[in-house]
Amino acid sequence: MAGETVITVVGNLTADPELRYTQNGLPVANFTIASTPRTFDRQANEWKDGEALFLRASVWREFAEHVAGSLTKGMRVIAQGRLRQRSYQDREGNQRTSIELEVDEIGPSLRYATAQVTRAASNGGGGQSRPQQQQQVSDEPWSTPGSSSADAWSTPGSFGDDTPF
Amino acid sequence: MAGETVITVVGNLTADPELRYTQNGLPVANFTIASTPRTFDRQANEWKDGEALFLRASVWREFAEHVAGSLTKGMRVIAQGRLRQRSYQDREGNQRTSIELEVDEIGPSLRYATAQVTRAASNGGGGQSRPQQQQQVSDEPWSTPGSSSADAWSTPGSFGDDTPF
Amino acid sequence: MAGETVITVVGNLTADPELRYTQNGLPVANFTIASTPRTFDRQANEWKDGEALFLRASVWREFAEHVAGSLTKGMRVIAQGRLRQRSYQDREGNQRTSIELEVDEIGPSLRYATAQVTRAASNGGGGQSRPQQQQQVSDEPWSTPGSSSADAWSTPGSFGDDTPF
Amino acid sequence: MAGETVITVVGNLTADPELRYTQNGLPVANFTIASTPRTFDRQANEWKDGEALFLRASVWREFAEHVAGSLTKGMRVIAQGRLRQRSYQDREGNQRTSIELEVDEIGPSLRYATAQVTRAASNGGGGQSRPQQQQQVSDEPWSTPGSSSADAWSTPGSFGDDTPF
Repeated sequence: MAGETVITVVGNLTADPELRYTQNGLPVANFTIASTPRTFDRQANEWKDGEALFLRASVWREFAEHVAGSLTKGMRVIAQGRLRQRSYQDREGNQRTSIELEVDEIGPSLRYATAQVTRAASNGGGGQSRPQQQQQVSDEPWSTPGSSSADAWSTPGSFGDDTPF
Repeated sequence: MAGETVITVVGNLTADPELRYTQNGLPVANFTIASTPRTFDRQANEWKDGEALFLRASVWREFAEHVAGSLTKGMRVIAQGRLRQRSYQDREGNQRTSIELEVDEIGPSLRYATAQVTRAASNGGGGQSRPQQQQQVSDEPWSTPGSSSADAWSTPGSFGDDTPF
Repeated sequence: MAGETVITVVGNLTADPELRYTQNGLPVANFTIASTPRTFDRQANEWKDGEALFLRASVWREFAEHVAGSLTKGMRVIAQGRLRQRSYQDREGNQRTSIELEVDEIGPSLRYATAQVTRAASNGGGGQSRPQQQQQVSDEPWSTPGSSSADAWSTPGSFGDDTPF
Repeated sequence: MAGETVITVVGNLTADPELRYTQNGLPVANFTIASTPRTFDRQANEWKDGEALFLRASVWREFAEHVAGSLTKGMRVIAQGRLRQRSYQDREGNQRTSIELEVDEIGPSLRYATAQVTRAASNGGGGQSRPQQQQQVSDEPWSTPGSSSADAWSTPGSFGDDTPF
């Protein structure tokens, strides 16, 4: 996909992520990020909360399992993804649209927290989801950026000694 | 600060973050994020690595301690911050400029990893750094967005039941 | 405002901007940006349009008049702003939310077009809108980033000769 | 390209864009965007300029000609592109790196200006650059997002009447 609207959101999870599996066995996790801006009130000389933005988000494959296994209600996260618009009919039969975030990257914010990070085992332990991943790679979310899990975070030793800094 | 150039970077740490303290006792952590784009080679029918972007980054206060205590060489992170340009003289006396990232949010990416997240104790345990935080709040990085640590991630219970989704 | 969700959108206007005035005489322009991503279909060996994102946008003050006087239906634009969520009741009395873009910067894209640019006269010619601008500056959109129109684009002569490049 | 570091910059041109042609006849325009953040000084109760970010930028093909024909020194622009790092040797033979912006979209900001926009003639009038565009499409900047000029801004009539808003 090219020309998509990419966005970075910082906020708190309104609930634990919900992990489900598609008919093909693909894991998908859904959750909502609440992002609350703040205004500095010069009269009161203090920050005040603005109106929150609630953004529904989804994430796929092993990535979904990592999210569901790591993030919980209330946690502050930083997420990057693509805005997607969905059309649907509400109960009254009216056409509605909703905007959602297709997550490409997400992690717990370290601003007010620490994290003990464990690299996922081989990226192949997903059982049923693996075969689909290979066959359907062209129409699944992960097919796009950095989809080959092999080379990300795989060669930590190659950095550090000869970087330009 | 308004009108700053905000950027989100996804990449791998080239080395463990270096944690130091300013003369005032303020913690600061420095590290480099290597972000490697990829091109799809249609002839070879595979993704190939492009030239990496190496971005020097810094983060302040308790946040710096969280980063230094959580992230290590090779880890994939997602970071958001403001681009800053610094001028300096090199050894030959020439004027040089460098571009760095002043980090506002960072977390370990959950794409290929899981994380066990622990909320930082009260945000006040930073010892020496606390007094400065209050006095110098106007000229320190954290004074800007979401600086009041109290209300971030502080009321997880207030979400989830009455959100619009 | 700090901690808002900032986004950049590239797309085409679905119609001419609608320019109106608030009771206080403040100009506001509303329009919709349609952003259409594209997928490369490897089988067909060509790009295909994905599902468009339609984002409702608003812009205020003289800026609104500039937009209404410059942009028309179909034009490709690049816009940056903050995502805002609005709650409202639909005709059936149901609570609905919509996401809109509060525009901070917008311009016609020069990818497939040229533009003859004219600097706005003095930024003060807005007549009725001027007094409000000063009094209400704290609760109006433009109060935030780069709000003082005086110094933007005001001293072109100061660049170019002594820049570091 | 996937996984590139995308950035949006708002600032003023430090000089007129320089338009040149590669040996293959491809137009390229280079320029520098100066982006100046601002801090609100609570004591003085006014905004003060921060240190500017100077970002060197380049743009290719007909797009380059549009930029060179539309933008001049001092103009405020909004630009989106990908950060690129270049290595080079300085006069003393030291290895240096510089960060530049490969522009994907740029336009004059309408905040303090108006623009009279003219759609480029057919996108094919570029003469020599056209053949290269087709042959070299895989290794040229424009090959990536929204590269087919045909469908952008080409069907303005298809919007407006049946949009969801």
